[in-house]
Amino acid sequence: MASSILITGGAGYVGSHTVAALLEQSEPYEIVVVDNVSNAYMAEDQMKPEPIRIVEELTGKNVHFYNVDIRDAEKLSEVFNQHNIECVIHFAALKAVGESVAKPMEYYQVNISGTCTLFDIMRKHGVYKLVYSSSSTVYGEPQMLPINESHPTGLGMTSPYGKSKFFCEEIMKDICRSDTKWTVVSLRYFNPVGAHRSGRIGEHPSGIPNNLMPYISQVAVGRLPELLVFGADYETPDGTGVRDYIHVVDLAEGHVSAIRLLRLPSTAGFHAINLGTGVGYSVLQMIKAFEEASGRKIPYRIVGRRAGDIAANYADVSLSLKLLGWRTTRTLDDMCRDTWRWQSGNPHGFKKS
Amino acid sequence: MASSILITGGAGYVGSHTVAALLEQSEPYEIVVVDNVSNAYMAEDQMKPEPIRIVEELTGKNVHFYNVDIRDAEKLSEVFNQHNIECVIHFAALKAVGESVAKPMEYYQVNISGTCTLFDIMRKHGVYKLVYSSSSTVYGEPQMLPINESHPTGLGMTSPYGKSKFFCEEIMKDICRSDTKWTVVSLRYFNPVGAHRSGRIGEHPSGIPNNLMPYISQVAVGRLPELLVFGADYETPDGTGVRDYIHVVDLAEGHVSAIRLLRLPSTAGFHAINLGTGVGYSVLQMIKAFEEASGRKIPYRIVGRRAGDIAANYADVSLSLKLLGWRTTRTLDDMCRDTWRWQSGNPHGFKKS
Repeated sequence: MASSILITGGAGYVGSHTVAALLEQSEPYEIVVVDNVSNAYMAEDQMKPEPIRIVEELTGKNVHFYNVDIRDAEKLSEVFNQHNIECVIHFAALKAVGESVAKPMEYYQVNISGTCTLFDIMRKHGVYKLVYSSSSTVYGEPQMLPINESHPTGLGMTSPYGKSKFFCEEIMKDICRSDTKWTVVSLRYFNPVGAHRSGRIGEHPSGIPNNLMPYISQVAVGRLPELLVFGADYETPDGTGVRDYIHVVDLAEGHVSAIRLLRLPSTAGFHAINLGTGVGYSVLQMIKAFEEASGRKIPYRIVGRRAGDIAANYADVSLSLKLLGWRTTRTLDDMCRDTWRWQSGNPHGFKKS
Repeated sequence: MASSILITGGAGYVGSHTVAALLEQSEPYEIVVVDNVSNAYMAEDQMKPEPIRIVEELTGKNVHFYNVDIRDAEKLSEVFNQHNIECVIHFAALKAVGESVAKPMEYYQVNISGTCTLFDIMRKHGVYKLVYSSSSTVYGEPQMLPINESHPTGLGMTSPYGKSKFFCEEIMKDICRSDTKWTVVSLRYFNPVGAHRSGRIGEHPSGIPNNLMPYISQVAVGRLPELLVFGADYETPDGTGVRDYIHVVDLAEGHVSAIRLLRLPSTAGFHAINLGTGVGYSVLQMIKAFEEASGRKIPYRIVGRRAGDIAANYADVSLSLKLLGWRTTRTLDDMCRDTWRWQSGNPHGFKKS
């Protein structure tokens, strides 16, 4: 039986782009996706969620898909029985910061208990290699910029979402310390934006988007009337918040490199690695870049700061270059253009109405 | 149907003494215990673990017992269906610091996932009042002494056990913030020792004890040849580690007071409360007190410090007095005498061999 990569949450935004990136490799991987389709669109007459179906179309390759919740140990174990899983990329999680404050139990159950269940099943099946979908949120308020991986984590965490990512990293560190069979690469994402160059898969937030780029693009396409800019009095060049935006396809390729790292015999243990460009852009810079890429005007209004937001955040990317041999290649213009291609071609996301 | 208190881990050391304390109240409570008997002794011809059976004998009252693991949502839910549960005291957890370093997955699954499952089932059954079995371990290395409840938590945690207690507190804080129906009292124990005055229930550690008092008493009774004292070069009066030892029956009575607090209408939200005496004793003081109480000589040998141990730790007990109207009444001599009565009467713990 050919060896496979199991991808949990593979129908999500970063997950589906990573599936595409893995299938586009010259030596493609056998891909098994488990996803509970809680945040992906699946047409009634289809057996696979839209993002997976489209990735199969784009690549001409097959993906094994299971509609399974990672908290369901029995069904998850069955997937491991069906395939020769070599390693796991673990995306499956709830990820809306604001929602996590309102529904902490759901966040801890899915993000912590679900992850613990996955580890347990992996161990029972002798699978000890994992790429984890972490976040720069674990750093809390930056004590220095750019942020490198030795920056303290877990301090001043304000949301259950952020805490759940931090707790999972701590759990994985302890597991790796207790048993040297484990290799875990925890990828700390900065701010993923953009979409596949085909314009056929992209971010599909439900409700009003929490993140800047989907918000901008929904204003550009006319779904929302204006953009609210939360705070223009930060200590940044133009007063608006600065973030390290990373093209989702660059991010996906970072996961392909992490899989290569996992396969090296010398990498046992826990490794946290930033995935970012190393460059920060302000909200106003993002608006301007998007206007240029889309040819649309983005009406915006400056309002008060949003609780929990920080002034600036961008990555020190030297470790990712050293350990993964990976760096981003796509520009801010690429991010805006690809977001726009996806958003203008699919104003309602994956739903065709 | 009379309202009941559900006690998870009620067959354990603190759990069984708390069951006894609740049944000894003038207005006794209906008690339901769930315990997976992983760390309690159950005779083959009995339907209940020894500590529960003995507490029933001592009090002349009945305890509803279910051999259920808190991770088993279905069986746990069935217990809630069978009884009119008013509130929960949640002891069920793994608790050996050293073992947690070797088996972190088990600790996180039982202590975190298990607790999340319990919360979920409680909410599904409309039960929103909980007393949680926490630990002074959440404070890490003390930044001031005595330690009060506003001391930072979660810093420099070295064991998965300690982290699991800290993570659970954070999860409970977030749940209480998200829904004002919840009342959680997290009791941060200092160092529980001693036994019920009957000498018939007490601490029953498996293997070589991790904690000082069971170690001393097993040396006194001749099960172990000598006591190892880990470090005599700490910055304390006699150089040995100082801890706040609390009689387990005082501790149990603290839980009875916490139940009263839970019932007040004005106490919604999360409350962390120290349970200690406020007084620290050194290892050498403990040895001397135990020798006096038992009339036995305790041979000991001073060896190097143990990784992760701190010099001194004792509680600021003003909040427990204010919120619970509770303070300890038992002396160091009581602790030693009651430990000795239990240990000398039951040299092999609950097993009669």
